[in-house]
Amino acid sequence: MAVEKLSESERKNWLSALDGWSMASDRDAIERTFKFADFSEAWAFMSRVALLAERHDHHPEWSNVYNTVEIALTTHDADGLSQRDVEMAKAINAL
Amino acid sequence: MAVEKLSESERKNWLSALDGWSMASDRDAIERTFKFADFSEAWAFMSRVALLAERHDHHPEWSNVYNTVEIALTTHDADGLSQRDVEMAKAINAL
Repeated sequence: MAVEKLSESERKNWLSALDGWSMASDRDAIERTFKFADFSEAWAFMSRVALLAERHDHHPEWSNVYNTVEIALTTHDADGLSQRDVEMAKAINAL
Repeated sequence: MAVEKLSESERKNWLSALDGWSMASDRDAIERTFKFADFSEAWAFMSRVALLAERHDHHPEWSNVYNTVEIALTTHDADGLSQRDVEMAKAINAL
């Protein structure tokens, strides 16, 4: 089943409701940076995001440097942002 | 205690012995890309690297997109490559 790309109005509405997330400057993706006290805390967070990713069957593009985790969400099947990214961002924010 | 940067001859010797690692193009770091069957396998590998990082008290700069893990190692305290990066790369290769 194809995943539908979000329309302009949909993405404006969703993005304003997604605390901390912003549009990537160079592609159709949303991103957020998370800071923690140290690597151990950052890793604990990443472990929970990994479980969410498997549960949602939707995987982030992410990087980690010590206490910092950068997450980007986009939907390759939709060639851009879809409702799946919104759901994943909401689930991550709820952690 | 300050960490010493590797000399030119040291880094040449070590790098040739470190299977799969190469110098980063834009800074004094070594990097390697690992590919797995899927996210679950990539995450299992990352979990083991996270434990190594804590044991060595030396943390990678790394990113993950689904089944691919890119790892860069450098030593901020030495402003470049040190023996600590070599030890960590060897430990990762041994997984």
